[in-house]
Amino acid sequence: FYKFVMIINDFSFKCHNSLKETSLSSRSMASKTPVGFIGLGNMGTPMAKNLLRNGYPVIATDVFPESCKELQDTGAQVVDSPAEVAEKADRIITMLPSSPNVIEVYTGPNGILKKVKKGTLLIDSSTIDPAVSKEMAVAAEKMGAVFMDAPVSGGVGAASLAKLTFMVGGVEEEYHAAQELLTCMGANVVYCGQVGTGQAAKICNNMLLAIGMIGTAETMNLGIRLGLDPKLLAKILNMSSGRCWSSDTYNPVPGVMEGVPSANNYQGGFGTTLMAKDLGLAQNTATNTKTPVPLGSLAHQIYRVMCSRGYANKDFSSVFQFLREEEGQ
Amino acid sequence: FYKFVMIINDFSFKCHNSLKETSLSSRSMASKTPVGFIGLGNMGTPMAKNLLRNGYPVIATDVFPESCKELQDTGAQVVDSPAEVAEKADRIITMLPSSPNVIEVYTGPNGILKKVKKGTLLIDSSTIDPAVSKEMAVAAEKMGAVFMDAPVSGGVGAASLAKLTFMVGGVEEEYHAAQELLTCMGANVVYCGQVGTGQAAKICNNMLLAIGMIGTAETMNLGIRLGLDPKLLAKILNMSSGRCWSSDTYNPVPGVMEGVPSANNYQGGFGTTLMAKDLGLAQNTATNTKTPVPLGSLAHQIYRVMCSRGYANKDFSSVFQFLREEEGQ
Amino acid sequence: FYKFVMIINDFSFKCHNSLKETSLSSRSMASKTPVGFIGLGNMGTPMAKNLLRNGYPVIATDVFPESCKELQDTGAQVVDSPAEVAEKADRIITMLPSSPNVIEVYTGPNGILKKVKKGTLLIDSSTIDPAVSKEMAVAAEKMGAVFMDAPVSGGVGAASLAKLTFMVGGVEEEYHAAQELLTCMGANVVYCGQVGTGQAAKICNNMLLAIGMIGTAETMNLGIRLGLDPKLLAKILNMSSGRCWSSDTYNPVPGVMEGVPSANNYQGGFGTTLMAKDLGLAQNTATNTKTPVPLGSLAHQIYRVMCSRGYANKDFSSVFQFLREEEGQ
Amino acid sequence: FYKFVMIINDFSFKCHNSLKETSLSSRSMASKTPVGFIGLGNMGTPMAKNLLRNGYPVIATDVFPESCKELQDTGAQVVDSPAEVAEKADRIITMLPSSPNVIEVYTGPNGILKKVKKGTLLIDSSTIDPAVSKEMAVAAEKMGAVFMDAPVSGGVGAASLAKLTFMVGGVEEEYHAAQELLTCMGANVVYCGQVGTGQAAKICNNMLLAIGMIGTAETMNLGIRLGLDPKLLAKILNMSSGRCWSSDTYNPVPGVMEGVPSANNYQGGFGTTLMAKDLGLAQNTATNTKTPVPLGSLAHQIYRVMCSRGYANKDFSSVFQFLREEEGQ
Repeated sequence: FYKFVMIINDFSFKCHNSLKETSLSSRSMASKTPVGFIGLGNMGTPMAKNLLRNGYPVIATDVFPESCKELQDTGAQVVDSPAEVAEKADRIITMLPSSPNVIEVYTGPNGILKKVKKGTLLIDSSTIDPAVSKEMAVAAEKMGAVFMDAPVSGGVGAASLAKLTFMVGGVEEEYHAAQELLTCMGANVVYCGQVGTGQAAKICNNMLLAIGMIGTAETMNLGIRLGLDPKLLAKILNMSSGRCWSSDTYNPVPGVMEGVPSANNYQGGFGTTLMAKDLGLAQNTATNTKTPVPLGSLAHQIYRVMCSRGYANKDFSSVFQFLREEEGQ
Repeated sequence: FYKFVMIINDFSFKCHNSLKETSLSSRSMASKTPVGFIGLGNMGTPMAKNLLRNGYPVIATDVFPESCKELQDTGAQVVDSPAEVAEKADRIITMLPSSPNVIEVYTGPNGILKKVKKGTLLIDSSTIDPAVSKEMAVAAEKMGAVFMDAPVSGGVGAASLAKLTFMVGGVEEEYHAAQELLTCMGANVVYCGQVGTGQAAKICNNMLLAIGMIGTAETMNLGIRLGLDPKLLAKILNMSSGRCWSSDTYNPVPGVMEGVPSANNYQGGFGTTLMAKDLGLAQNTATNTKTPVPLGSLAHQIYRVMCSRGYANKDFSSVFQFLREEEGQ
Repeated sequence: FYKFVMIINDFSFKCHNSLKETSLSSRSMASKTPVGFIGLGNMGTPMAKNLLRNGYPVIATDVFPESCKELQDTGAQVVDSPAEVAEKADRIITMLPSSPNVIEVYTGPNGILKKVKKGTLLIDSSTIDPAVSKEMAVAAEKMGAVFMDAPVSGGVGAASLAKLTFMVGGVEEEYHAAQELLTCMGANVVYCGQVGTGQAAKICNNMLLAIGMIGTAETMNLGIRLGLDPKLLAKILNMSSGRCWSSDTYNPVPGVMEGVPSANNYQGGFGTTLMAKDLGLAQNTATNTKTPVPLGSLAHQIYRVMCSRGYANKDFSSVFQFLREEEGQ
Repeated sequence: FYKFVMIINDFSFKCHNSLKETSLSSRSMASKTPVGFIGLGNMGTPMAKNLLRNGYPVIATDVFPESCKELQDTGAQVVDSPAEVAEKADRIITMLPSSPNVIEVYTGPNGILKKVKKGTLLIDSSTIDPAVSKEMAVAAEKMGAVFMDAPVSGGVGAASLAKLTFMVGGVEEEYHAAQELLTCMGANVVYCGQVGTGQAAKICNNMLLAIGMIGTAETMNLGIRLGLDPKLLAKILNMSSGRCWSSDTYNPVPGVMEGVPSANNYQGGFGTTLMAKDLGLAQNTATNTKTPVPLGSLAHQIYRVMCSRGYANKDFSSVFQFLREEEGQ
């Protein structure tokens, strides 16, 4: 989701010419040894290409042969299974759609952990339930490997341009080794704490984002019905305590801002389906930790209903359109 | 509510030495003619004092004699009823607790409109339903007077220091006449449009504020339960798309920021009762205009429950405390 | 709303041949003296006709001449204003769309109270805010008249067949006099308490009805997605603690029951717009009495959104359809 | 939860003298061969005792030795692990607190499936996510065993009196074999469909129950504040379309009914924590199947907040008390 821009101090030293490499652990010292990459979807493919571009040999696999083919043509070595990747690489990145895929790829019959070498660094950039990240970390540790979660902010564009933001959870001593690879694929890398906190940070941000967006849509709609000019209302909110990212950077009302999805019929941006997925993760996580999240929960329900009413592929700011449609239209 | 700071271009020219006075309408030209003031509560009294301080004779009244006494001691003339104020002043400011009080003071048996002179400027700074503002404007117009709504942001402190923000709705030609008086009591005056839009702007801002605050409280609580450090989480949110005023300026989690109510056991600030009142206005307004406001509505309910569970007089950021209390405690 | 059937002990003695008439007050003793009727809409017209059918002379008025014409043809005397009705009848029934209409008809310049005779019985069958009912009662009392609220359950069909249910609020001593007239128009008359409690009872019932209906729709939808047969699920719920009127009498899932709107593409029944109106009243009432109603409030929002998404004129059980539409459709 | 009474046709033939036994499968024909029982908590222990009472030898295990001791004293044989139970019994019942326990007991290192014999009937009476039930069924099938889910309604009292209700999901041909055992422990056994539908039925019922209860509490509270007598309001609702199990059988307002938790300071009954757990399952299930459940979701949040505010161990009808506390108290 390309609008999730973090201005955190820029860690993006160029991997291939950094003098600091020599100070890294033995694993990362050998920085041009192969890196495994599992999950070659819309996000994974450009990420893996950026590793290649930075001079890393890539050993890759995916369940879809055509995805493998594309990366093979760019110079990667393609193998048959996660287990085989684990035999050939001691640093592996996974980028998968959801928790069950992660469980399968790590602990399945042909999974990474069947063949993983001691000391291997496993970085999962999927967005999944933090509880699953923790389970994977425990399973990896039993085999002598290290697991970190590193979900991304930023969409396909950011992935291609190596402008992703990574939020990383895991043992602190291994963070630098992870950072070396992640900075080849992203502009910002933030260390969040123990395993699972990378997922937690992403889920939390997106939940608050959804709440702010729906709140902004409701507020703008109410103000307009009460006779306020939308631009003036946005200006007042943005100078006041109602201000939020959705009101001042990504306003959902057509005509208020340029260069945002609301100015382009809610095309592009961050799809309602994806937001609903992340809110589902937030909901599951909150349920499992017995944390009350009344607005987060209602936001989830609203995006869920929108998915079934024709908004699945529109940007999530289209909630303004969903709420405002006039009676009788 | 003192944190509602608007940085809009500063209109606060000193009234008593402004050369522009001569260019104003006949009513405001006579700028040192008496100004009426009705409603001498915690907010009204310091506001009226600022008019006196700026050299305006003040004709005041209130249902509580002791409030009248205090202002009388500062130099105001106290009279018995709104009608009597209307006989003696052609510019009148009202600052009352709720819609029924406003209706009574304007249209009651001893109300302003019983004795109002043609051309009188009536400025209501109460926070009420915009529909009532519109009714008052119609009633005033029938008597040849002009009504404007000008609710304030900022609390007692801001009222004393003449640092309030006024959001003004009414006929544009009369705006400058209103501005002359309001700038004696506030630092910012924003013209919002037709009658009622001042109220609308305030209600909208506070609804989005409440949503952002509860959303921030839920999110911080969830993140903490998932193992994130609260300060780090706030930092990540504030650099990301989850950012809002409640996360970056008024964070509800003790220990994250200084100088905010969460750092002081939720004392001071903007009370939960007052927020519940404003959300009630937003709800009524939304209901009456058939505008869906699902999150605003739920925010209202949450603050309503909090009022009955011991949080009535705590700052509205105490929703964090309300939601987080551990099971079994 | 014809499905709102009350099986309360049947008060429906035939007015015209009741021996009890002689025991009633002087006003109702003269039972064939004229009855005023104001508001000749879809509901009011058949109600007034039932009074005529029972031998009461009717003095009627309405803002729409064509409505007056229809009743005139049936034998009513039509006059020009509510005030004129009040001059000619000492028992008056009003049946109006909303609070502002009631205020106008009672307290407006040509309103009932301008000409009302001492001792007149005023019965308002409109569904409005109970606070307005109380205001009207106070205003009537000042003129020496008696006001009662008596909103109805049952739709146009029930109105025609004199099968309405009336929920009556007002001074208990006057209840029998009201009952005499109401039993000519309805099958059940329930005394609820002081003025406003008739409205309160109706609003409360409809709020719980809406909650039960949406809850049933969500539950049936969830069960179906989990592989349960809808009829079996309904049967299980109806024998268990999930049972409610919406699950056992008015099930919203097509194919589960016959003779209900869900069996007829959600035509007929009680329209979503009307439910949204009643929930708006419940919301306003709750807001004004500071009563938390989280589910009632969310139910209101859901029906409000439905109104703007094409469900305005479908039966309110169509919330099942609103929630279930599959992704991608 | 003893109030969840199903009046379904009574399947409760006495197991020990039924002539039908001879018509059952070979497994159940040998009806007095041992039955395994895993999970000897508050519910499991009385259930296992009822099997003993009906003449079944019981092979039991539990992680808590003291629970095992109690059952051993009643005549059961206690063994060390689920695997050992599976070695010795070809019909096994499990009654465990939550999904992870079920997964461990079936698929863990000492789990049932390590030693299960071909053709064994596995009946899980835990209340868990239906998706986990399906996983267990698949895993059991791989070993040649049959898995059914059969969660119960009814609390400890019903368990002791063999008055539970079982909702059963699984292959229909095996249902009679399951029924033979379940009727020894419960009064009603309902076949719901494929594996997981027993859980689905229970979850659905409890979600609608929670919605009805909170809705009833809100409605009664609103009506009382509007001046209605609680008993009269309950009577009106129960004769009207607002009627539900929570209003007519388990009214949450003290003084309206006798013999319910609200008449006894919300002691006994079905604890708020348990309801929150079931709503969490409903929420997870809805999230995972992408089913919108706005009211169910909010009900979950309300019970979650109640758990952290001192209501964890009160009956779930105490939501009335939670919502009504007066301002200032």
